[in-house]
Amino acid sequence: MKNNETKKYIAEFIGTFALVFCGTGAIIVNEQSNGSLGLLGIALTFGIIISAMIYIFGNTSGAHINPAVTIALVIGKLTSKRDALFYILAQILGAIMASGLLKFIFPENQTLGATIPSGELLQSFILEFVLTFFLMLTILGVTSKKEFSNVAGLIIGLVVAGIILFAGPISGGSFNPARSLAPAIVSGNFTALWIYIIASTFGAIIAMLVWKAINKTE
Amino acid sequence: MKNNETKKYIAEFIGTFALVFCGTGAIIVNEQSNGSLGLLGIALTFGIIISAMIYIFGNTSGAHINPAVTIALVIGKLTSKRDALFYILAQILGAIMASGLLKFIFPENQTLGATIPSGELLQSFILEFVLTFFLMLTILGVTSKKEFSNVAGLIIGLVVAGIILFAGPISGGSFNPARSLAPAIVSGNFTALWIYIIASTFGAIIAMLVWKAINKTE
Amino acid sequence: MKNNETKKYIAEFIGTFALVFCGTGAIIVNEQSNGSLGLLGIALTFGIIISAMIYIFGNTSGAHINPAVTIALVIGKLTSKRDALFYILAQILGAIMASGLLKFIFPENQTLGATIPSGELLQSFILEFVLTFFLMLTILGVTSKKEFSNVAGLIIGLVVAGIILFAGPISGGSFNPARSLAPAIVSGNFTALWIYIIASTFGAIIAMLVWKAINKTE
Amino acid sequence: MKNNETKKYIAEFIGTFALVFCGTGAIIVNEQSNGSLGLLGIALTFGIIISAMIYIFGNTSGAHINPAVTIALVIGKLTSKRDALFYILAQILGAIMASGLLKFIFPENQTLGATIPSGELLQSFILEFVLTFFLMLTILGVTSKKEFSNVAGLIIGLVVAGIILFAGPISGGSFNPARSLAPAIVSGNFTALWIYIIASTFGAIIAMLVWKAINKTE
Repeated sequence: MKNNETKKYIAEFIGTFALVFCGTGAIIVNEQSNGSLGLLGIALTFGIIISAMIYIFGNTSGAHINPAVTIALVIGKLTSKRDALFYILAQILGAIMASGLLKFIFPENQTLGATIPSGELLQSFILEFVLTFFLMLTILGVTSKKEFSNVAGLIIGLVVAGIILFAGPISGGSFNPARSLAPAIVSGNFTALWIYIIASTFGAIIAMLVWKAINKTE
Repeated sequence: MKNNETKKYIAEFIGTFALVFCGTGAIIVNEQSNGSLGLLGIALTFGIIISAMIYIFGNTSGAHINPAVTIALVIGKLTSKRDALFYILAQILGAIMASGLLKFIFPENQTLGATIPSGELLQSFILEFVLTFFLMLTILGVTSKKEFSNVAGLIIGLVVAGIILFAGPISGGSFNPARSLAPAIVSGNFTALWIYIIASTFGAIIAMLVWKAINKTE
Repeated sequence: MKNNETKKYIAEFIGTFALVFCGTGAIIVNEQSNGSLGLLGIALTFGIIISAMIYIFGNTSGAHINPAVTIALVIGKLTSKRDALFYILAQILGAIMASGLLKFIFPENQTLGATIPSGELLQSFILEFVLTFFLMLTILGVTSKKEFSNVAGLIIGLVVAGIILFAGPISGGSFNPARSLAPAIVSGNFTALWIYIIASTFGAIIAMLVWKAINKTE
Repeated sequence: MKNNETKKYIAEFIGTFALVFCGTGAIIVNEQSNGSLGLLGIALTFGIIISAMIYIFGNTSGAHINPAVTIALVIGKLTSKRDALFYILAQILGAIMASGLLKFIFPENQTLGATIPSGELLQSFILEFVLTFFLMLTILGVTSKKEFSNVAGLIIGLVVAGIILFAGPISGGSFNPARSLAPAIVSGNFTALWIYIIASTFGAIIAMLVWKAINKTE
């Protein structure tokens, strides 16, 4: 493995670690402090840390920090299959390490910020699908133009915050298989985990196909 | 119809779908979750999704996603009448599809995030008129200079969030006929709907005329 | 009076009208709706509308929309005395028109969003002085470099929101003589109005002098 | 001492004064006003004032306004040892002056916004260490590319707000030795102060080393 490749995988590892540590950590701290963050505080923490990681690692790895995004980019031929494999491994490893550290810091917490549907599964499935579709469109929109490069990280983070605000009380607001997998594994609660893996991945893939169709030059 | 035109109308369709799905969806989720978003969460969801759509579709269709904006741009000769007709149809269709999907996901919800004046109609009329006037001025201001192109979407979204914060408790904070029409049609409640169609459209038109007057070069 | 001049004064009139209408309007709506905006919603409304006005009118008049800023810019020789006179008249007129319209829409409201110190006058005086000092430094910082021109409006609006969050519960968070004067005149309550005229003006002037000293090239 | 140097140290003095005055001042005002700011309001006040200082003094001193950042930059050979010494003195002096002024304005306040761990010390230590690590990575990421220069201040401020949201209820959310030292000295309460000096400094240093490793060109 080349030095350059290793750096990319380390970037994905640290980026996804940061996302899960701060984002699901904010959920845990909110529970421990009688809701002092509120949904708005949790949504902003997730969005801001994602923005930060894009500014830090965008030039190194592209800062996917989300297996659904990586898979959609492979289908759009914007990432190689080899990179995708190692990216996803690094993302999952980073996420699990983050949940593990949160378990160490907050041993009494039961769910570790896991995403668990609050109502019918279909509600959560549709929300995770449609909103990851919009998130992936946003990622493609802001990274497709050179002039947006300095605001891309900010906008992607804001959109994550916005869709967590909307879907948070229903589905938990994941849009990222690694972010849902890690607390599920470390807490041992796999309730409805499949939704967060399948719905977000399909949403991202469909967004890639729609984007290609709209931006195809004849 | 040319391929290029179809793409523009699809962009307006998806954009307005996203706006109504996420924005009025946030109102519905707020009702279902004992106000966990609050006015601030709802306003930010609306603003952020509008920002996202501008970054995604700004280059394709201009991302009007609002019939009042489209009509004002026709009057300012910045959009053709033919485009305007199809844009508005696409916007209304997208908005109704979004309200329909929300009805499917949240069948028990009665108003689907419709805008209904909370006090006297005149209050809501003036607020919708004056604030759409400022919103349209903002759109014209940030899209008139090349150097603002990378922040235009962000600023327009923020202004929508800001004016929803102000007017939300009184008029509901629409500033967009399609956004008010769709939940009215799908929920069958047309109370004061005319305000949200007329006040916002006139506000946008007056803004266009004021902008032209101020920026006329002699 | 030249056509060009008239446009600048109209810009200051509309800009300050918007600031007072939306900002103090948000305070009134918050009172009418059992605090649904909260301090955060009020602060963001003020900040966002100021950002919008800077993007709309920055190229026309500079978008001062604040007599304290105009006076400091005269002292820094960045605005002519003639312009300053008409700017301040336009600002005060716009602000009073805004308070008048709010009185018309919300006739039952007593204070119209006036700034009234909640504790000792000295607390409010120091906060208004120090925070207008920082606000003016921010204005000078972001408008001094060409590369900041596309974010200047955003940053200035954010800083206004931030200092309202801090000082709001104590002084009301004015930093702008016109914003405090208008609701005082229209509601007939002049309590401690002098603080909001003197403290903010001196804070802005001192900031201009400090900025000149730090950025003086030898 | 050269004139140019003096200006840099004055910039660090004013910048850290502003950070402590507004940030810890917001905590005090929140206590005095029955929590009207909330955690979100406090976090945004801290973040926004830091953004402002970076736009104001970024060109003068680099706007470190944080001894942990200055030390990490010395280790990364991006700041001279001589500058670092005077920067840290100016930062501490500015911070203490701010806490002193807050004591004067709010004499009845006991802790002056000091950071005091709410649970086990290890929790606070880990949070301060890991989050300062991410903050320092963000600083290095956004200041390493010319194209990010106009959003660097905004992103750094947002990240500070985000990590205060997460860690605030546990550690208080310092990430800055000067910010914790000043209220401790002025209020005479040194509880667990060492955590806020050591954890943040080590976090910033490790971030510098990781950044160097990832961005080393072979």
